[in-house]
Amino acid sequence: MTWSITRQDLLDLAYGAALLGSGGGGDPYIGRLMAQRALDRGRTVTVWDLDQVPDDALVISTAMMGAPTVMIEKLPAGTEGVAALHALEEHLSRSATATIPMECGGLNSTLPLVVAAEAGIPVLDADGMGRAFPELQMETFHVFGVSGSPMAIANEHGDVAMVMARDNRAMEWLARGICVRMGGAAMIAEYSMPGAVAKRVSIPGTLKLGICLGAAVRQARRRHSDPLEGIAAALAAAGYRGPRLLFEGRVEDVLRQTTGGFVKGHARIRGYGSQDVMRVAFQNEHLIAEIDGELLAVVPDLICILATETAEPITTESLRYGQRVTVISITPPEIMRTPEALEVFGPAAFGLNATYTPSCPE
Amino acid sequence: MTWSITRQDLLDLAYGAALLGSGGGGDPYIGRLMAQRALDRGRTVTVWDLDQVPDDALVISTAMMGAPTVMIEKLPAGTEGVAALHALEEHLSRSATATIPMECGGLNSTLPLVVAAEAGIPVLDADGMGRAFPELQMETFHVFGVSGSPMAIANEHGDVAMVMARDNRAMEWLARGICVRMGGAAMIAEYSMPGAVAKRVSIPGTLKLGICLGAAVRQARRRHSDPLEGIAAALAAAGYRGPRLLFEGRVEDVLRQTTGGFVKGHARIRGYGSQDVMRVAFQNEHLIAEIDGELLAVVPDLICILATETAEPITTESLRYGQRVTVISITPPEIMRTPEALEVFGPAAFGLNATYTPSCPE
Repeated sequence: MTWSITRQDLLDLAYGAALLGSGGGGDPYIGRLMAQRALDRGRTVTVWDLDQVPDDALVISTAMMGAPTVMIEKLPAGTEGVAALHALEEHLSRSATATIPMECGGLNSTLPLVVAAEAGIPVLDADGMGRAFPELQMETFHVFGVSGSPMAIANEHGDVAMVMARDNRAMEWLARGICVRMGGAAMIAEYSMPGAVAKRVSIPGTLKLGICLGAAVRQARRRHSDPLEGIAAALAAAGYRGPRLLFEGRVEDVLRQTTGGFVKGHARIRGYGSQDVMRVAFQNEHLIAEIDGELLAVVPDLICILATETAEPITTESLRYGQRVTVISITPPEIMRTPEALEVFGPAAFGLNATYTPSCPE
Repeated sequence: MTWSITRQDLLDLAYGAALLGSGGGGDPYIGRLMAQRALDRGRTVTVWDLDQVPDDALVISTAMMGAPTVMIEKLPAGTEGVAALHALEEHLSRSATATIPMECGGLNSTLPLVVAAEAGIPVLDADGMGRAFPELQMETFHVFGVSGSPMAIANEHGDVAMVMARDNRAMEWLARGICVRMGGAAMIAEYSMPGAVAKRVSIPGTLKLGICLGAAVRQARRRHSDPLEGIAAALAAAGYRGPRLLFEGRVEDVLRQTTGGFVKGHARIRGYGSQDVMRVAFQNEHLIAEIDGELLAVVPDLICILATETAEPITTESLRYGQRVTVISITPPEIMRTPEALEVFGPAAFGLNATYTPSCPE
């Protein structure tokens, strides 16, 4: 199916992307404004279903990399994404047929739409994380052996760098250093691959999922029904499980440091009239939720902190003392829970001493 | 004139390069061993005089970048220089006719010889600094408006990055970040230019100067005459002035930090039986020598600290408490003392509150 993104889609996607961002991925509001502006300028965002891309097409993933705390202060000029794409195309001596989001959460669910609109190519309804993750090798593309290099990284001043690394972890390490020197946030083009490979290594339907999540919550609000029920229906249609309600309470402490190109820290949430304190640790995204050492959810499960009153997702850079929050978890599709996938973005990949089990029942 | 580097040339050059390194540039011993090994493997190092390079030739500068303190511990694998050269050639879709040293001091006087031998191209007898400087824009190439970008940077693991920066200062900033992530030292290829431009923007004869300095000191030692007289004769032949004897004494304190990809600090030297203390500050290379606030020499003049007994230059990373030293200065050729040149590598470029005047009389 080929379809075009509407203004309403962008509004709904901003919600869905924030939820799938699992606390990170950068504030989707900025990405929405940029995509909105592209539509206002008469551009079209054409979406292809994953199975529609020709086997011999050239697919290139585009995204912003950096710390979400930086992204809300250092806004993109809007030209970086296409600059990164063009630099990689020039290096490959070939034009991209389509772009694919690296992740379907946060800013990076909408920025590829902007790149697609400006470059005049379609965006695939699929991604390489099924959520948001902080590092460039934490992608199903990597799990299935696709090389992220050569990759391009561009900033708002017109500087461009290319990284040709020995493996995807070295690519992340070098690109992160460049990103920090570019001010902590920059646009990238990476994981170039044939359409046939993209079909095999991507998570399909996650753009539609983001839009459906937003639409479901919008409709639930109009009907004054429970937003979580709408979320459950949208998730089930895309092969996700949940949401599971983990905890409700008030934020009593946040430790947050922007360091090495990431935002790292944790939040403590105290239950109402209770001694229970939930600790949620994060590296750009929420990684683990536990109460008194008891594990409730851990990556790659999505851990989302919602404002209790509005069901709006709260990103790690927006967590504040005193917020009343509802913590939920979501279990991602099977493709993200294989032993090979867990090795790349399971608990051990983040240095967490925990064993992954899905937090949401089948 | 076309000539070939001999084993004796390499031994002499190791001395001359250490002197012209002005305390920095990395220990030439390592570069000598690498060039020696290339000769042992049957390679030839062919040298062209600068005026010999065809106007339409492609000249590419090759060098190591990083902190000298790192370079003496993290030795090159030997493949990085050619890897960087080839990456830049591939980007330009053209092969280099010749390579030119970025600087004629330290490690970087001999590493381009290794690249030339391995790549089978000549090295030009010229450079872009007339000494050693710590940053990539501190080159006469830059002073005369040549773009350092596109540049390639390669490490011992086979990782390569390319930088296409808006200007040469941004190139230095981004490349330094990559260099730090590559472990603090990496090989680069930069400032690609036609032969006609190379003739206009380079300092000629500095490879021969390095060899002549070493030969002069070797002969002076054999004759038990003053090495400084031999140095003076070699310098005069290449348009340099000096050396001027600034101070003699004993190192009584060294502050040295490896930070941000540089080694920065200062040494204090106390005169024999005197209250005079000379302070020599450095950023990879010696920058300024003063006694009680009285300026004796400042960049771009070369400040060299020699072991008094042997006249061996001591690099900033080898300065130690108790060493008996002779501090001399050298005034570089006119091309390095123009207002445009001083703007790039004069005192203000290093944040020094001093006015440059040549320390050696005409």
